[in-house]
Amino acid sequence: MNYGRELLKDVEGYVPGEQLNRPDIIKLNTNENPYPPSPKVLEAIRALTDDALRKYPDPVSLAFRSACAERYGCESADWIIAGNGMDELLSLVLRTFVDPGDTVVATYPTYSLYEILCALHGSPLEYIDLDDDLQLAEDMYVARGRLCFLTRPNAPTGVAAPRADVERLCESFPGIVVIDEAYADFADDNCLDFPARFPNAIVMRTFSKSFSLAGMRIGVAIARPALIREFLKTKDSYNMDAVSQAAGLASMQDYDWQQENVAKVRATRTRLRAALIERGFDVPVSQSNFLLAHWAGEPAAKGIFEALRERGILVRYFNARRLTNALRITVGTDAECDALLTGLDAIIGDAGA
Amino acid sequence: MNYGRELLKDVEGYVPGEQLNRPDIIKLNTNENPYPPSPKVLEAIRALTDDALRKYPDPVSLAFRSACAERYGCESADWIIAGNGMDELLSLVLRTFVDPGDTVVATYPTYSLYEILCALHGSPLEYIDLDDDLQLAEDMYVARGRLCFLTRPNAPTGVAAPRADVERLCESFPGIVVIDEAYADFADDNCLDFPARFPNAIVMRTFSKSFSLAGMRIGVAIARPALIREFLKTKDSYNMDAVSQAAGLASMQDYDWQQENVAKVRATRTRLRAALIERGFDVPVSQSNFLLAHWAGEPAAKGIFEALRERGILVRYFNARRLTNALRITVGTDAECDALLTGLDAIIGDAGA
Repeated sequence: MNYGRELLKDVEGYVPGEQLNRPDIIKLNTNENPYPPSPKVLEAIRALTDDALRKYPDPVSLAFRSACAERYGCESADWIIAGNGMDELLSLVLRTFVDPGDTVVATYPTYSLYEILCALHGSPLEYIDLDDDLQLAEDMYVARGRLCFLTRPNAPTGVAAPRADVERLCESFPGIVVIDEAYADFADDNCLDFPARFPNAIVMRTFSKSFSLAGMRIGVAIARPALIREFLKTKDSYNMDAVSQAAGLASMQDYDWQQENVAKVRATRTRLRAALIERGFDVPVSQSNFLLAHWAGEPAAKGIFEALRERGILVRYFNARRLTNALRITVGTDAECDALLTGLDAIIGDAGA
Repeated sequence: MNYGRELLKDVEGYVPGEQLNRPDIIKLNTNENPYPPSPKVLEAIRALTDDALRKYPDPVSLAFRSACAERYGCESADWIIAGNGMDELLSLVLRTFVDPGDTVVATYPTYSLYEILCALHGSPLEYIDLDDDLQLAEDMYVARGRLCFLTRPNAPTGVAAPRADVERLCESFPGIVVIDEAYADFADDNCLDFPARFPNAIVMRTFSKSFSLAGMRIGVAIARPALIREFLKTKDSYNMDAVSQAAGLASMQDYDWQQENVAKVRATRTRLRAALIERGFDVPVSQSNFLLAHWAGEPAAKGIFEALRERGILVRYFNARRLTNALRITVGTDAECDALLTGLDAIIGDAGA
């Protein structure tokens, strides 16, 4: 007897990037931050007592949300919802604003999780191809649906749509526009002002990248209070544990630490991009903490991915349309990027030069 | 313009028991454990390093699940899924096994969250009243639906259905039977053997009660691997943060600590029940860490609830059918229960004696 849902029959679930825990592995495959989180975070965690573990946490994460509201220029915590990673908020946004069966829109390529979340929710996802410059195509502005996911900067391209294009999208799209700013702290600008300007704009942030807290599962969404109120209905009663709330608050209170790490990543990104271009890769300007490196030479991108893996260097390879000739490389420390380049030189030899 | 779902219009979301954080408050309203978690838990949390925070956690919580499998007599971790509190698993179980529109069955009264989760999912919930002894009525065994929630021991009654009744339900019910064992560690027996015996049985456990870890949000579900595989498709990619996984594992490895706390709570439960009966309350035998105390005297239960609150003693009052003449009282420490009894004596005077 089968108790499962027909809907799930062909869903495989999201396959995360590999997490090999050999200490000698160089992990440039899951866009983690190579630098540690603020020391205030571990301090805050270690300061927690038995009582914080024993009792239910604040169900609405008020102290943390208030700190985010202040930092992000919102009037109050009513503009913010906190989640168990941005993952939870991405899943919630469908359940909060989309009826199963309603169409969801996204660019192609983009973050591959959206497709899985839509399949789980029973909503058809309409992809609209980015143009040849990896920018929003005109079709985006006539798209219709209940909700639109826009990753800015985009993953896995690293390219950020101009703010003016996002404005045009918020005006033209009849439903909710989720601006997924997972990587925005690494970009030149962001859309934090959009929720105040557009009633349908929801900006999402993760603490996994710029704040170096992937292990803690912390994300926030910023939107008008009317939308946040709907979100609060659908979230789990106590979705953020006491430790996450304390960690999120401490990291927000030591914002300079994150900014310094971001500056280091941006400097290495510039250097790594130049070195990859020098080796014959085609690498769009990235506003993220990763680079999408296109490769037309020999061995093919998949071969490079596998050869790097044998050397203990993990990058990401996507077996998907428009991405089969590319590697997504997380910007690590300078030393990690040097090791990557040395590996590449050994693998591609003179092929690309 | 309204971007919300019609479905959510009348949903209010779950209202958790009050969390007043005044240190002098006696909290007997949310069924927290009055005793601290194992010292090994804080040790494990404090031993975590920056690297555990910086990197993504194990997406499938394997070490923790393996420890649970061993403790709960399962063949392997394939029989277990870990969640961000049992809350996440209760929400997931609907999304994994119930199509919106399909009927869900539960006893009445029971844990009030089910009704909200069903409303959010768009599934009608059919309540079947418990009989006058707070046991399963004959109607339960002819009920039809995609999924049935059975809280055992039940909340807020504290009464556990005999195992034979749960067996009969698993055999008669055509869909999934969720046996919510949030409080089972405080009971004389449990249904941990049911998943191996019944293909439709899913047993759920929380670490919020017996393990004193409400602040950490840890829960597990135990079921046949075919069901667990479906669950793994619908959960968030990294649903348990690194700290929760470490805390869950440490608490499971120091199981004796939990057992000692459970023994203390059970002893106090016996004493408190006798004291309440002596004062005129009607209190069914509880297998949980709370007592449902029915009261026919003056002032009415709601008045007692409010008067206790004024004295800084919180208990739970439900403004719901069959519960309006009752208080749900968490079994605290002996001292907390003494304070409660002193408060009650002042409020009810000789009324009930």
